[in-house]
Amino acid sequence: MEHYYAVILAGGGGTRLWPMSRAAFPKQMLPLVEDNSMFRVSVERLTPLFTPDQIYVVTGPKFAEAMLTEAPDIPAENFLVEPYGKNTAPAAALAAEVIYKRDPEATIVLLTADHHIANKDKFRGVLEAACKLAQDDYIVTLGISPSIPSTGFGYIRRGDPLREVDGFSSYHSRGFTEKPDAATAMAFISSGEYSWNSGMFIWRADRALNEFQRLQPEIYQAMTSLQASIDTPDYAAKLLEVWEQVPKVAIDTAVMEKTERMAVIPVDIGWSDVGSWEALFDVLDLDSNGNCFKGSAPSRLVIDTKNTLIYSDKLTVTIGVEDLVVVDTPDALMICKKERTQDVKKVVDMLREMKHETYL
Amino acid sequence: MEHYYAVILAGGGGTRLWPMSRAAFPKQMLPLVEDNSMFRVSVERLTPLFTPDQIYVVTGPKFAEAMLTEAPDIPAENFLVEPYGKNTAPAAALAAEVIYKRDPEATIVLLTADHHIANKDKFRGVLEAACKLAQDDYIVTLGISPSIPSTGFGYIRRGDPLREVDGFSSYHSRGFTEKPDAATAMAFISSGEYSWNSGMFIWRADRALNEFQRLQPEIYQAMTSLQASIDTPDYAAKLLEVWEQVPKVAIDTAVMEKTERMAVIPVDIGWSDVGSWEALFDVLDLDSNGNCFKGSAPSRLVIDTKNTLIYSDKLTVTIGVEDLVVVDTPDALMICKKERTQDVKKVVDMLREMKHETYL
Repeated sequence: MEHYYAVILAGGGGTRLWPMSRAAFPKQMLPLVEDNSMFRVSVERLTPLFTPDQIYVVTGPKFAEAMLTEAPDIPAENFLVEPYGKNTAPAAALAAEVIYKRDPEATIVLLTADHHIANKDKFRGVLEAACKLAQDDYIVTLGISPSIPSTGFGYIRRGDPLREVDGFSSYHSRGFTEKPDAATAMAFISSGEYSWNSGMFIWRADRALNEFQRLQPEIYQAMTSLQASIDTPDYAAKLLEVWEQVPKVAIDTAVMEKTERMAVIPVDIGWSDVGSWEALFDVLDLDSNGNCFKGSAPSRLVIDTKNTLIYSDKLTVTIGVEDLVVVDTPDALMICKKERTQDVKKVVDMLREMKHETYL
Repeated sequence: MEHYYAVILAGGGGTRLWPMSRAAFPKQMLPLVEDNSMFRVSVERLTPLFTPDQIYVVTGPKFAEAMLTEAPDIPAENFLVEPYGKNTAPAAALAAEVIYKRDPEATIVLLTADHHIANKDKFRGVLEAACKLAQDDYIVTLGISPSIPSTGFGYIRRGDPLREVDGFSSYHSRGFTEKPDAATAMAFISSGEYSWNSGMFIWRADRALNEFQRLQPEIYQAMTSLQASIDTPDYAAKLLEVWEQVPKVAIDTAVMEKTERMAVIPVDIGWSDVGSWEALFDVLDLDSNGNCFKGSAPSRLVIDTKNTLIYSDKLTVTIGVEDLVVVDTPDALMICKKERTQDVKKVVDMLREMKHETYL
């Protein structure tokens, strides 16, 4: 896998997983599904496809040190610290510029740090296939086989078949549709032609820079002016300077939805964006009553309790309840009906309005 | 109200109110209904009928200091500290013996520290009437007008009318029935002849000692041998000695259910034994959605929440839940369906079996 690099975009966010997820301790730092943080799980599941020096992390200054501790094998120079958040397009461009300078033959796999993937073998297999396909100058996206007509994801429509790589079929893309209404989502599912946009993109570094040049000239100019300083003492100051100039925009809309080189590999890898507490019910190991308990509670007493998810670090007792999400943290307790967990985002908005910054 | 004394029996207990109520911090020490502890509320609602020096407290060595702090106006010598718990009959006998020695003309009102009384004026009024009736050598009990056919209380049946005192009608007692079955309880309510046994008894100290002599000679002998040491340096050692000899028995069964001198004053004073978390719904001020929040939480966000009682000292958020009792303490969290709060006692039993002493 020479010249292949994984870039984990780990900027922050995750307000729907409040009160565990906080501005200072975001979703990817939490052991939401497995025993380690989602970030660490995201790093570990790349092995053995990528060696530690082939893994890059783009994150903010608040989280860089903690992530370095979580993934000590990754070289420090592979942590690309954004001065502040500018969404994913500048982050992806920065990674492309740095990696290209260090290895002009590079192929880059753009990944997230806060998604769950159940089938890790297949995940690595499809990444390898995508890297191979990217050598033909395609921008490859992994298209997640949709399980429900979700209105919360972007959809990508497959076009003509492209070719098969390592047993994975690839297709030309016929374009993206961002968060359709329910009827449209249902039609998408029925057609069998659509996948969810996973946000995982694979492209060669030179192709990436080329696309930025064509589609996001501001970002491209900024990164070009940064290039000479990369791996020199001037880098940090220069980055701060150019970072001001780049627009705040997502890689999906800035580049991926505009390019004609998009290819899609539809795949079922047990992917979940873990976008809400309810989504966790689908990825956690539930007991025979549909319950799951996470956290370091010394004991739990569960009496006549069903379909209930509890994150707690202290003795927790439930009696006669069902369909609940209970999240207990040192300074906040949330009890939410399972089907209402989308409203958690509203709570965070309300806390912000109430100036309860300490809880955000 | 010369020669009248209130004796608050405040030994401990309250496992149905776990996880707030603990062995080391029992129900009467908790601000369950009002802003102060139930003990302090029990003391304060006696004013102005009783002056502080007319109030006695019988409690265990673990709680005496905290109670002294809660009720600093009560003289220290009025705190009668049981070496260890022997149920209420020895406690009542000890109080009678000590008070009789200090004032042979004493009339004693036996009270609990962990019951709620909504109508405090009427409560004081009926206590005064009961004290007057006790001068005719009756043992007077306040009979609570039953609101539901509870199987959890003892019932007292009224017999022939005795006389009216200060506007309160009194009756001879036709006997007690401890915790009847549901059909019997229903029949009791229908008959209109029954009241709940409140556990509040009013008698003269000399009559009390007389009844112990007749009905509980072991207790009487022990207290008689203690008498000479009361208010002398020998008291503590002597009490420890005699305390070993007394049987562990409740005042209700030891004396009240056996005596022929029982009179009852049926009365509605908004009494609740606060015997479970569910019982609190009846005595707390609920908001328009039937919710109540207690504790020092800096904020609460309550979205589509109904009939839910929350005790919490930290930010607490509920979304889309109803009929819950949520109790958050530093080391334990309980979430219980409202109608299942009787099962909290089972949880305490389970914790005891699991040797989780720290949570008891």
